Amino acid sequence: MKVNARLIAGLVHGTLEGDPEIAITAPCGIESAKPEHISFMGNLKYEHYLYSTEAGIVLIPSDFQLKEPVKPTLIRVPDVYQAVALLLQHFQVKEQVSSSIAESAVVDKSASIGEGTHISAQVFVDRNAVIGKHVHIYPQVYIGAEVTIADYTIIYPGVRIYRDCHIGEYCIIHSNTVIGSDGFGFVKDEDGAFNKVPQIGKVRIGDRVEIGANCTIDRATMGETVIHDGVKLDNLIHIAHNVHIGKHTAMAAQVGVAGSTKIGESCLIGGQVGFAGHIEIADQTEIQAQSGIGASITEKGKKWFGSPAIDYVSYIKSHIIFKKLPELWKKVLSLEKERD
Amino acid sequence: MKVNARLIAGLVHGTLEGDPEIAITAPCGIESAKPEHISFMGNLKYEHYLYSTEAGIVLIPSDFQLKEPVKPTLIRVPDVYQAVALLLQHFQVKEQVSSSIAESAVVDKSASIGEGTHISAQVFVDRNAVIGKHVHIYPQVYIGAEVTIADYTIIYPGVRIYRDCHIGEYCIIHSNTVIGSDGFGFVKDEDGAFNKVPQIGKVRIGDRVEIGANCTIDRATMGETVIHDGVKLDNLIHIAHNVHIGKHTAMAAQVGVAGSTKIGESCLIGGQVGFAGHIEIADQTEIQAQSGIGASITEKGKKWFGSPAIDYVSYIKSHIIFKKLPELWKKVLSLEKERD
Amino acid sequence: MKVNARLIAGLVHGTLEGDPEIAITAPCGIESAKPEHISFMGNLKYEHYLYSTEAGIVLIPSDFQLKEPVKPTLIRVPDVYQAVALLLQHFQVKEQVSSSIAESAVVDKSASIGEGTHISAQVFVDRNAVIGKHVHIYPQVYIGAEVTIADYTIIYPGVRIYRDCHIGEYCIIHSNTVIGSDGFGFVKDEDGAFNKVPQIGKVRIGDRVEIGANCTIDRATMGETVIHDGVKLDNLIHIAHNVHIGKHTAMAAQVGVAGSTKIGESCLIGGQVGFAGHIEIADQTEIQAQSGIGASITEKGKKWFGSPAIDYVSYIKSHIIFKKLPELWKKVLSLEKERD
Repeated sequence: MKVNARLIAGLVHGTLEGDPEIAITAPCGIESAKPEHISFMGNLKYEHYLYSTEAGIVLIPSDFQLKEPVKPTLIRVPDVYQAVALLLQHFQVKEQVSSSIAESAVVDKSASIGEGTHISAQVFVDRNAVIGKHVHIYPQVYIGAEVTIADYTIIYPGVRIYRDCHIGEYCIIHSNTVIGSDGFGFVKDEDGAFNKVPQIGKVRIGDRVEIGANCTIDRATMGETVIHDGVKLDNLIHIAHNVHIGKHTAMAAQVGVAGSTKIGESCLIGGQVGFAGHIEIADQTEIQAQSGIGASITEKGKKWFGSPAIDYVSYIKSHIIFKKLPELWKKVLSLEKERD
Repeated sequence: MKVNARLIAGLVHGTLEGDPEIAITAPCGIESAKPEHISFMGNLKYEHYLYSTEAGIVLIPSDFQLKEPVKPTLIRVPDVYQAVALLLQHFQVKEQVSSSIAESAVVDKSASIGEGTHISAQVFVDRNAVIGKHVHIYPQVYIGAEVTIADYTIIYPGVRIYRDCHIGEYCIIHSNTVIGSDGFGFVKDEDGAFNKVPQIGKVRIGDRVEIGANCTIDRATMGETVIHDGVKLDNLIHIAHNVHIGKHTAMAAQVGVAGSTKIGESCLIGGQVGFAGHIEIADQTEIQAQSGIGASITEKGKKWFGSPAIDYVSYIKSHIIFKKLPELWKKVLSLEKERD
Repeated sequence: MKVNARLIAGLVHGTLEGDPEIAITAPCGIESAKPEHISFMGNLKYEHYLYSTEAGIVLIPSDFQLKEPVKPTLIRVPDVYQAVALLLQHFQVKEQVSSSIAESAVVDKSASIGEGTHISAQVFVDRNAVIGKHVHIYPQVYIGAEVTIADYTIIYPGVRIYRDCHIGEYCIIHSNTVIGSDGFGFVKDEDGAFNKVPQIGKVRIGDRVEIGANCTIDRATMGETVIHDGVKLDNLIHIAHNVHIGKHTAMAAQVGVAGSTKIGESCLIGGQVGFAGHIEIADQTEIQAQSGIGASITEKGKKWFGSPAIDYVSYIKSHIIFKKLPELWKKVLSLEKERD
């Protein structure tokens, strides 16, 4: 499929500079684009690529001032990243969602499957599961007894959903993520052996949640582990039993949240951050990658860093002196020597 | 199923205060319980919920003194958490373990399957595997050649057990955990390329071990990687080749242990802790979350923190000064100035 | 199979000391070896085992000087680890690769399967996938539409390869690793909700790459995520969208690399290290376990430590003073007191 610059400018509500007839076939990153590609420059860090790229068309910010002439046709837009999102949706090959159950799927006869829903090959659906309309279950997924999945959700290959969990509508769950595995709960006996506390709660996942690959979301000991509407989790994230994650919070890869912790709304959590159990985190909290949060955060909208984490700016300032500690030590020894 | 307070008090050997006829249907967390629920208060941090909860019945410690009157019937027990464990076992819906091999399972004819064992749909069992009695293999599990699994073990969907590994009795392995993948062993050649050292050892997992979801336990280069009896591993944990983990040690999520390290008995390891390779850790060691252990720990029963980790109390003390480093720096500069 | 010391000495080009007729059946670690085993001592740290081992044969370095008499037959070699690698290849039981498609595999009729390739039970291969010669696909693997896999590659059980990704030749991908899941890309709208940026790029994996179990390699937003030839990744590693990893770089377990970062050739990355997005790392960089890399590294062949990381030696020096911070603080307070 070929699309010309005029059509694209219309699609993204942009202003055209250059040849409106130039046609492209696919989007591509600016550093490796060819004349048949459309690309974008959304960050001034990448400005230099604009003057050397071979892309046919490039999206740039409305108010951007060119320092040199450029080869591609330009389309100016107020928000480059939103325009890219729109453009990519246009180019994305839609998966065909035929309404069907593959022959090799094993679906319990008590399960309910909505219209337009596709159950792929080698899927297992256990008793009394309720799957809504226009859901796409990829191959090799496991859906336990009593699980409910709402409309328009996509479950990628190898996801495991243990019994009695709920997934909302318009969710996307990536491959090999596990939802509803047992929380880590044990009682030590007098011989030092751990006795299992049975985990009889559930997991409830809201609407428009996206969960990356190889994550683990444990079921509650009692009650529910809750991922609220609009939460976005990257890959390899661990959410323990009875955790609550507030609306529109996003977590980068490899974050771990210990049991019963409640994280607020619209928080931004960097990669490899760890949260202790039984704490509460205020809305709009931002946490720098690799930080460790050992206590509740009650003030909204602050930024944290370190393990254990402190205020972000304080951490940066302390870290500057940390690098000079051998020098500081010598200074003090020399002051002491002179005193004596 | 409805159960009244008198019956429950008998079950947990507790003392009843309030209406012995009040009946509940399920357990629930104290903050969200309704009159048809039983709940518990095991930690004084949650005492305030006791005065507002709508729960029908609440378990509390024997010696707890009420500060206000409460609505629910109370059952006093010496150890609230042990009583809860007992109670939850009572309420847990037992999975039906029928003795059978599902039609879509592929089981090599040389494999041996014990009585009362259930091989679910879409499971693969390779040649000469030996699976004991009353084992429950959930759908979509892979069991390699020569693998042995002892009696009463539960293997959740999507677990992969490579050839020649052993799992003990009464174990629980959660979804998508991988046991017996190759250790990370390479020899660099003169061109800088890594040549693989074939990994021909095994993994041996003792009895009553529980392993969470999405863990990886690598096989030994030669010999065995060993997880001893009663060990409990949370989710997303990495155990490298030739590691040994001692009896009754528990590890929180996302811990990583590098090759050939030996961890003692009854250790408690916090989340996201990392261990270097080829070290030994004494029994009863406790390690704070996110710490890095780069050298052997020879003294039993100590607590560690930091990366690289030091004694826990020393770390906390140093961290207090770390937060004041900019102030400390200024003090020293000012002392120097006055000296000059 | 029994092999005697003379034959082994020939195989590894070593020099024999002791009984050339002694025969062994398998390799084993030096601390637990029995007379029917061959073992090795490649590191002086383990010298003491040499004098107590029951192994029949032990490989040792050519120039090693015995301090006491030993029981086993010795074979001296210039590089013990290379000799072990050779030896293990000899002992490794070769998996039988019969050229066949298992009955329970679901292979789209538009897919192309090369000669000598084995598609195991319960595998799913989608439309237009192209799988080369002598490839071994283990059970329960998912291969998406348009995926290409080159000759002699091994894919272990439960690997998921999303549509349109490429895997080179002689690669090994371990169980439950996910390749081609969506990059973590969202645009925030005025209501604080995240809108998904469709991820339409690919993953390209070079030749002779080995990837451990439960890793996640995200597809590019546009363009490609690239793992170059000879890269070795351990378990539970996260590689984000548009990352490039240079030739012969090795990463230990649980490393995370954020979006668009480019890592050079022949780098050695310790376990649990995190990289920020949009940075570049020079060739031959070495990074200590648990470090955090927040900015580009432009100088080749340096070693780094800490979070955020600094020069390795500087970190060690600062950390020594970190442990003495309470003492340093007291010294300064005392200096101030005397001044006043």
